[in-house]
Amino acid sequence: MSLTLDQARGIIAAARTHGQEQGLKPLTVVVLDAGGHVLAVEREDGSSTKRFEVAFGKAHGAVSLGLGSRALMARAEQQPFFIAAVTHAVGALVPVPGGVLVHDAAGDLLGAVGVSGDTSDNDEAAAVAGVEAAGLVAQTG
Amino acid sequence: MSLTLDQARGIIAAARTHGQEQGLKPLTVVVLDAGGHVLAVEREDGSSTKRFEVAFGKAHGAVSLGLGSRALMARAEQQPFFIAAVTHAVGALVPVPGGVLVHDAAGDLLGAVGVSGDTSDNDEAAAVAGVEAAGLVAQTG
Amino acid sequence: MSLTLDQARGIIAAARTHGQEQGLKPLTVVVLDAGGHVLAVEREDGSSTKRFEVAFGKAHGAVSLGLGSRALMARAEQQPFFIAAVTHAVGALVPVPGGVLVHDAAGDLLGAVGVSGDTSDNDEAAAVAGVEAAGLVAQTG
Amino acid sequence: MSLTLDQARGIIAAARTHGQEQGLKPLTVVVLDAGGHVLAVEREDGSSTKRFEVAFGKAHGAVSLGLGSRALMARAEQQPFFIAAVTHAVGALVPVPGGVLVHDAAGDLLGAVGVSGDTSDNDEAAAVAGVEAAGLVAQTG
Repeated sequence: MSLTLDQARGIIAAARTHGQEQGLKPLTVVVLDAGGHVLAVEREDGSSTKRFEVAFGKAHGAVSLGLGSRALMARAEQQPFFIAAVTHAVGALVPVPGGVLVHDAAGDLLGAVGVSGDTSDNDEAAAVAGVEAAGLVAQTG
Repeated sequence: MSLTLDQARGIIAAARTHGQEQGLKPLTVVVLDAGGHVLAVEREDGSSTKRFEVAFGKAHGAVSLGLGSRALMARAEQQPFFIAAVTHAVGALVPVPGGVLVHDAAGDLLGAVGVSGDTSDNDEAAAVAGVEAAGLVAQTG
Repeated sequence: MSLTLDQARGIIAAARTHGQEQGLKPLTVVVLDAGGHVLAVEREDGSSTKRFEVAFGKAHGAVSLGLGSRALMARAEQQPFFIAAVTHAVGALVPVPGGVLVHDAAGDLLGAVGVSGDTSDNDEAAAVAGVEAAGLVAQTG
Repeated sequence: MSLTLDQARGIIAAARTHGQEQGLKPLTVVVLDAGGHVLAVEREDGSSTKRFEVAFGKAHGAVSLGLGSRALMARAEQQPFFIAAVTHAVGALVPVPGGVLVHDAAGDLLGAVGVSGDTSDNDEAAAVAGVEAAGLVAQTG
């Protein structure tokens, strides 16, 4: 079971609305399915050239290890060599807040969302706002 | 000068409408800016896991060399070693139709669109339909 | 929706039984989930060192593009440059028979199976036997 | 001399039984032969998408350097640049506990086991339980 494209677009729309209401810098929002594959992306005008790659790395790291990217930051602070090694083993993994897992009410994993553009904490808040607006559950750590 | 996110979303919406009207298989549509960086992506339900990477490769190859991916296929048929070498040098480059350059009426390059999911010819037709619906000019070869 | 580990183990057991009944060379059988990630692997004694990588490539190519690896061989024969480019873009892809998609009776994609060790045709027959023994539907092309 | 597939399957079964008896999170267990090549893998339902790659990295690092991954963690804490360099040179190497070497009673190296899914210490305990249940000797450091 995985997110649909319509759910992904709804998450992006709500995350972007949150960013505009909060006066955040231009955001890039990436939504992945439960397998870690790209479903939908929007990079706002003024969001820098490689923000897709950064936002993807937050979401891909989260779904790859089954933890929100905030928990991966904590691991990186304790064992930077572990995060470096896992990045080599599994690919893109950006261990700072802004990559959240998406579950349904039953707790099944449906995918992940990655946001980049403002501070990591603000990126994460936008991701959570997007997930919750879709009636789903966000896991940040 | 480059595509805006609103233009990119319009291109994707029109390309997807074309696909549905023509009864094409589920499509993945990727829009890149003039620098070859991801602006927006939508992968329709049922489009296989790596269609983003394939569609990105069509568009990225096109903008990287300044030619629609149909022209890159012709080059691959003549000199496969050239396409292999350039892929190694510049990254993702999928040399079959479906990657089109986007110009404005004045001829300025604004970005590129890549589509994957149906036959290469049908993918290209969807990309062109998306670009023209946005009032822009598509270059397929 | 994806294969469970128990389903994956049943597919491997039945594919290996087929190989033994048919007197095939030692086989390596890899089962991936719907996202293309490893669920279960068995490499029979005498199957050469890199057979996991070959069998994985058959199954991963299949699920990545949504086609059995026999169809990818046909494409490689027509457009070798396309298969080379997609391999660069998406990772392991071995375009010969032996990588089959796994669907349920309703047609939903559940994962993929890759077999390597004997001839490609015999590898494919073992994969199909494994999938059908699990009460599921195999797509070879 | 190397582990047989039957020995590998026995190690996986016992490691998984240990995990269930101890109430560990869903585990992924990878068994490699003495050459560092995949013999058998099982990823339990609920174990995240890239756990194969992490568990493989623990076992592959261990057999590549002839040390359990706990010893590689100690080296990473002292000389992170050494582990980074060796990872670049030899491939997957995840320097945290959970990758153990497998010897026979005579001290001959037969292969390695990698486990990922719970804490590194619990992953290692499951790997050791699996090896010992097979009547073999586990080296953790």
